Amino acid sequence: MAVYTDIDDETLATFLSEYDLGAARAFKGIAEGVENSNFLLETETGRYILTVFEKRAKAEDLPFFMNMMRHLAIKDFPAPLPVEARDGEALRTLKGKPAVIISFLQGMSPRSPSSSQCRRLGAGLARFHAALADFGMQRPNDLSLPTWLDMFAAREDQVDQLVPGLHDLIAADLAALKEDWPKDLPSGAIHADLFPDNAFFLDGELSGVIDFYFACTDFLAYDIAVCLNAWCFETRGEFNITKGQALLSGYQTERRLSPDECEAIPTLARGAAMRFFLTRLIDWADTPKDALVRPKNPLDYAERLGFHRRAKGIEDYGG
Amino acid sequence: MAVYTDIDDETLATFLSEYDLGAARAFKGIAEGVENSNFLLETETGRYILTVFEKRAKAEDLPFFMNMMRHLAIKDFPAPLPVEARDGEALRTLKGKPAVIISFLQGMSPRSPSSSQCRRLGAGLARFHAALADFGMQRPNDLSLPTWLDMFAAREDQVDQLVPGLHDLIAADLAALKEDWPKDLPSGAIHADLFPDNAFFLDGELSGVIDFYFACTDFLAYDIAVCLNAWCFETRGEFNITKGQALLSGYQTERRLSPDECEAIPTLARGAAMRFFLTRLIDWADTPKDALVRPKNPLDYAERLGFHRRAKGIEDYGG
Repeated sequence: MAVYTDIDDETLATFLSEYDLGAARAFKGIAEGVENSNFLLETETGRYILTVFEKRAKAEDLPFFMNMMRHLAIKDFPAPLPVEARDGEALRTLKGKPAVIISFLQGMSPRSPSSSQCRRLGAGLARFHAALADFGMQRPNDLSLPTWLDMFAAREDQVDQLVPGLHDLIAADLAALKEDWPKDLPSGAIHADLFPDNAFFLDGELSGVIDFYFACTDFLAYDIAVCLNAWCFETRGEFNITKGQALLSGYQTERRLSPDECEAIPTLARGAAMRFFLTRLIDWADTPKDALVRPKNPLDYAERLGFHRRAKGIEDYGG
Repeated sequence: MAVYTDIDDETLATFLSEYDLGAARAFKGIAEGVENSNFLLETETGRYILTVFEKRAKAEDLPFFMNMMRHLAIKDFPAPLPVEARDGEALRTLKGKPAVIISFLQGMSPRSPSSSQCRRLGAGLARFHAALADFGMQRPNDLSLPTWLDMFAAREDQVDQLVPGLHDLIAADLAALKEDWPKDLPSGAIHADLFPDNAFFLDGELSGVIDFYFACTDFLAYDIAVCLNAWCFETRGEFNITKGQALLSGYQTERRLSPDECEAIPTLARGAAMRFFLTRLIDWADTPKDALVRPKNPLDYAERLGFHRRAKGIEDYGG
């Protein structure tokens, strides 16, 4: 649930006067995304989402996200299209914050993805990578291995408060990740946060991918590793290998993984679990008690790390 | 901002299977209403609002609200129409809570209503009362004078923490209200909470009235008194008499106020301000620091009470 910035009807009317979208006919804050404020906007010309970027979004990163969405939408990938105002700019300012209007996508996010949805998500992710193969912009992944080491160092003393003994397991995971992290795999623009709540399905098909605000340039297979974590685990760290098989084979209907990529999957999946464990650990520790958003529990990812620690190869993921 | 109940895609699909609305095509929690959870629901047949009633709503009151909305919508008043499931029932159960799907109304709520909007709201309120003149159900106002006395008694010791000396002013207001409260005025079904965020405007016209969950049977002029408080004050308790004049004359284009009603306006307005002062006082004192909803400041209404205390007659409100 996220509406941090309050937009009144007059402020909105002034903002919309710079577009060719007509006047607003409905406007409602929506509980979508965690980092930014989002509104459903209906005008005389259609429905849109207005996003106001809050303090965690870095202004210099926003053109990368805008251009990536535009690149995808132009290639008929179901991503929202940033809408340009009359001056040709999509990225604008509203109440002193960066803001953008994007197109509205229909569809429902699955709470418990089915194997069929995992298969379609896998295939969709491969099409996403293919559509971005000629995307010219770069953005380093600012939540990758070197950052994990810093994040852990900063919160090391709080880890055993979650589960006694967890500190040493995480430290060993990080040492292993540092040792084993692949040096050279096919790279490009990745979503890096493709959780089920960032995907829409309609009539059984993937109808939308949203929330590009962690997108960056990194190993394509790392995006698969994020999805294996986000789509294929049941509660208590149990990996559903049927869903893993569906996701991996779905992906490979569109793009074959190289032997190096296959070999790297357990390490990449362990790294992806580490990334979400650490960001949740920090949010958990740092969120004031009166915050409007309840932080997610980092333990879910501590449990997933337990699975990845024991995985021997891609076959443990259904590959 | 209000989404207290979490509804996943499968739960929603099961719920919708009892309706003839087709499958869901979009579903988003929205920041509308304070007491209940609200979702924008798009199906194959159109757009709707799904409301899940949270603990403050009394189940025995819900048929009154449903029938009132239906009565209004059938008479072409722009109120949401409760949608019946195949068994003919609009009021249903979702995750163990009462829930209803109502039609979606277009329009924008004004943050700072203009005089023109106050005039149209006044006229709309009179049409609302006229449309309900033959509404057969009754619901006592459970936030009226006897309740105010109890509410004040329960929080008396906290009033001077807001403003030193306020306690005695409020006690004197309550004594005056008890003395002066009218005994017999035209009565019927009233909205009782028609704040600007419960009204939508489109192309300058009143296009929607929502949130009927304080509606009850009481003096019609008390509804006007609520609106004078909610629509015609500027900051710091300053009454905008131009807006008051617009609201009152707008109302009287549709229904003339009787001499008794005119005479009662200052007392009714003082009572309405007392009602919102006291409910906000209680919410303010009772809301835990980690609550998802920030309570509204009761002082706005303490300042409005200051105006009503000095008002001599309806002419002080622009009447």
